[in-house]
Amino acid sequence: MVKTSKDARPTPRLPKGLRDIEAAELRQQQDMLAKIRAVYERYGFEPLETPAFEYTDALGKFLPDHDRPNEGVFSFQEEAPETVVPEARKQNEPSGAEPWLSLRYDLTAPLARYVAQNYQTLPKPFRRYAVGNVWRNEKPGPGRFREFMQFDADTVGAESVAADAEMCMLAADTLEALAIKRGDYVIKVGSRKILDGVLEHIGISGATAADQRLRVLRAIDKLDRLGPDGVRALLGKGRKDESGDYTTGAELDDKQSKKILSLVSGEGESWVDTTMWTRPTNDEWTRTPAEITRVTKLPAELGKSYFYSNSELLNHWAKLIGNSQAGIEGLRELRQMLTIMESSGYGSRRFRISADVIRGLEYYTGPVFEAELTFEVKDEKGNPVRFGSVGGGGRYDDLVARFTGQKVPATGFSIGVSRLQAALNALNPRAAAAADGPVIVTVMEKDHIADYQKLVQTLRNADIRAELYLGNPKKFGKQLEYADKRGSPCVVIQGSNERDANPPQVILKDMIEGAKAAAAIADNKEWKETRPAQVSVKEADLVAEVRKILARHAG
Amino acid sequence: MVKTSKDARPTPRLPKGLRDIEAAELRQQQDMLAKIRAVYERYGFEPLETPAFEYTDALGKFLPDHDRPNEGVFSFQEEAPETVVPEARKQNEPSGAEPWLSLRYDLTAPLARYVAQNYQTLPKPFRRYAVGNVWRNEKPGPGRFREFMQFDADTVGAESVAADAEMCMLAADTLEALAIKRGDYVIKVGSRKILDGVLEHIGISGATAADQRLRVLRAIDKLDRLGPDGVRALLGKGRKDESGDYTTGAELDDKQSKKILSLVSGEGESWVDTTMWTRPTNDEWTRTPAEITRVTKLPAELGKSYFYSNSELLNHWAKLIGNSQAGIEGLRELRQMLTIMESSGYGSRRFRISADVIRGLEYYTGPVFEAELTFEVKDEKGNPVRFGSVGGGGRYDDLVARFTGQKVPATGFSIGVSRLQAALNALNPRAAAAADGPVIVTVMEKDHIADYQKLVQTLRNADIRAELYLGNPKKFGKQLEYADKRGSPCVVIQGSNERDANPPQVILKDMIEGAKAAAAIADNKEWKETRPAQVSVKEADLVAEVRKILARHAG
Repeated sequence: MVKTSKDARPTPRLPKGLRDIEAAELRQQQDMLAKIRAVYERYGFEPLETPAFEYTDALGKFLPDHDRPNEGVFSFQEEAPETVVPEARKQNEPSGAEPWLSLRYDLTAPLARYVAQNYQTLPKPFRRYAVGNVWRNEKPGPGRFREFMQFDADTVGAESVAADAEMCMLAADTLEALAIKRGDYVIKVGSRKILDGVLEHIGISGATAADQRLRVLRAIDKLDRLGPDGVRALLGKGRKDESGDYTTGAELDDKQSKKILSLVSGEGESWVDTTMWTRPTNDEWTRTPAEITRVTKLPAELGKSYFYSNSELLNHWAKLIGNSQAGIEGLRELRQMLTIMESSGYGSRRFRISADVIRGLEYYTGPVFEAELTFEVKDEKGNPVRFGSVGGGGRYDDLVARFTGQKVPATGFSIGVSRLQAALNALNPRAAAAADGPVIVTVMEKDHIADYQKLVQTLRNADIRAELYLGNPKKFGKQLEYADKRGSPCVVIQGSNERDANPPQVILKDMIEGAKAAAAIADNKEWKETRPAQVSVKEADLVAEVRKILARHAG
Repeated sequence: MVKTSKDARPTPRLPKGLRDIEAAELRQQQDMLAKIRAVYERYGFEPLETPAFEYTDALGKFLPDHDRPNEGVFSFQEEAPETVVPEARKQNEPSGAEPWLSLRYDLTAPLARYVAQNYQTLPKPFRRYAVGNVWRNEKPGPGRFREFMQFDADTVGAESVAADAEMCMLAADTLEALAIKRGDYVIKVGSRKILDGVLEHIGISGATAADQRLRVLRAIDKLDRLGPDGVRALLGKGRKDESGDYTTGAELDDKQSKKILSLVSGEGESWVDTTMWTRPTNDEWTRTPAEITRVTKLPAELGKSYFYSNSELLNHWAKLIGNSQAGIEGLRELRQMLTIMESSGYGSRRFRISADVIRGLEYYTGPVFEAELTFEVKDEKGNPVRFGSVGGGGRYDDLVARFTGQKVPATGFSIGVSRLQAALNALNPRAAAAADGPVIVTVMEKDHIADYQKLVQTLRNADIRAELYLGNPKKFGKQLEYADKRGSPCVVIQGSNERDANPPQVILKDMIEGAKAAAAIADNKEWKETRPAQVSVKEADLVAEVRKILARHAG
């Protein structure tokens, strides 16, 4: 027996940053996942599922927030001696201590482990997709959870930027498969090598500057949240946030910071000159002046909507990277991607070169992508809200080499399922409505439960969603309330009169018609006399008659 | 940059008891989950997803192996101060220490937490289904993993055994939806109350005997693994296993042990007399003599296949429970369930009263069920193998009361997805074959990648699974090898001859016909001259011509 003395009773509650997902949202998620899966399959990816946790050293540590105590991951130690593989313990913990395990923080690090472990037998390139929850031990916030779902596609063993271009096309096709219209999203593409090029050009490069480079990356990643001034502080001496926490800066001087800010936001710079602004063409992505000012001060003499092309932007970047080899290679790769995508019919309306794609994870080495929703919705207060990034990815050529020492080029794209679902809900709120509830067979006489259950089973065998009312049947009104709460299209009623009739009858009450009729009827007496939306039918015709009611409310 | 110095390199490996699930198995799993979901939905259950981990105290500890250090669960402490809810900390850890979190070990304990937390707003009864991985920190073994998937349905707030009967029918319908034939499975039903009745009858009852009762339960649960002698030892003084580990016994005397063994295995007892053995009828489940001897010594004068009815077995149990109130109630409930199921057309061929249904988890309070596969398959050595239990459940009336102090009756059924899938594979090995691979567009000239990618995209836009070969294209043979390994139905080839033709052409190589032809051709020279299973078609007809090849190999 379970003890229920009051002192011992725990409070039913969830840890912060975790949540329960209920029926309507789960149904919608199922539908989303099926559509995403169909696109990934069409692109030739094969499914793979790795465990929820792995050896901590096998996952590695590539999260943005290295400074925090648990390094952003949830970790625990193998405890029971018999579950530990002795060799593994020796390999990883020469001290003989139990090895550490961590919940996966993404689906890419486990993929690298899997590929390193199975390299000999895998087809190469290896193309896999994966869907699953990941866990981050981070500060939760509104819409920011410590457990969330990702849906990834990755190609491992492909050096060609054709693989990167394919990821961007996959991202675009996936969003369109989810009924996000062209023009309502954009796949932004940048490159770690461009930033490396600029860093090299301003004198920050080589192993000695690794830490500084990382701080620059993290600072840039916060542009959306902190704006140029916040980023400037993080690029320089550092910044204290509202809560009083202090983040050490990258220690760049003003001139260096200015170049970085020029690359990622165009702020205060004249490198985008007005000659690049041309009228929008048909399949081209357009920016409204408000957005353009993030890149440059918009010349007043220009009209409402302007356009600069992907290749024009790349030409401008060429000036920022100087003679840096990394920068030059990055530009060449982005130009190749442009060619491939345009040849396949993916123009700049879907695909934009952009410097503000950073991606928090450290393991990226080349092109990086971000799928951004560009449409606006109004929040409860009527203020415009943008969802922004709903996925991203990039090239990570060194992740398998962590294990094998041998470079295995790789690239991938990851969808943030929950975030994308929130956006879809905003785009089409009706989609979140509950599915049709089951037909409820009510209980009039307790000792006839077996007969009622038989009616339920008859409906189910005809593939009709149905159930017996399993609560306390004493108050019939409670049973109708329950049916109402479950969204039942109709309830089935059989009292002794109906059962003893020849042939036996059942009463079907149309809950939807009933609700309408109830709204139209003035008093209780009239209600009882007319019993709206109820029909008595032969028990033998149960399935056919219920189907009639379902058909009436379908669609 | 990621460090790859040899010393720092981790070994790519998985912790014991965890595994990767690859494409063929995942596809089959997807298909299974969809079928199970359809049945659960038809029964009127609504989906719910709870997080992977919760506060340890909210999950409670109901696993069979209480004696082990980590109590069978994976646990860790909240570490970062800012992620801790201060009230929660105060509530649970008056010392101010950080609270413990545990990965869920089943889907029922989180459901109880959810219901207690949301009781006011839920429809009552609350019917939900859930699918997801659970984690147990147990000794892994062959086919026994520390992460595995369950698919549960539960009805919370229903006192009636109609809810339990429904769970058994759900289990039967689910197995049949997965193409397991009637007769190849059985839903076994027992009751905790029967065992309680026998315990009471032999003088073990009340709060003081709680620990002893638990040890009896655990002993019985090991009947399949240890046989009657092992269980007898665990019911008595205790037992040392092969590894030398000692398990303390329940300290029953010989007479008491004999009664328990009589209930669960019929061993050494004459309470099943030969008058109950009758010839099998049509819709009745039959036992072969080998199985029957588990219940009783089979009288030699009886033939090969015999049957005893569910109600006959219940009549015999009545003699074992004496005047115990719990036992009498348990019998009444099982008889009601029989009536309901039989009225709905579920006879004893699908549904068997059985005393050896124990269920390891401690929280059960009434009827308990187990879905067992009864067919035999041969293992690699040709020995017959039975899969046994692939799911189970039962009534747990006290689980919500842990939180609220108020009794909320509940019952549920859980499918062990991985175990069931292994069984389905054995039943129909072909089902595990890979799905058709993608069409591969090969790369003849590296600087025409954009053109090849366009061919790929053309196929994808026509909803044909296709991909560009993204490995190093230097050796064409490698590309064909890759296509072969991926199970491609055909590859697309375009060299300069084809592209420069008027109109442009592509070569389609049928990989399946090609393999057949290759097998039939004697020498290399003939191969090169005849180029079997290759056709040259207009590039404009690519989609139509590929569809012809796909149609040829469909089904």
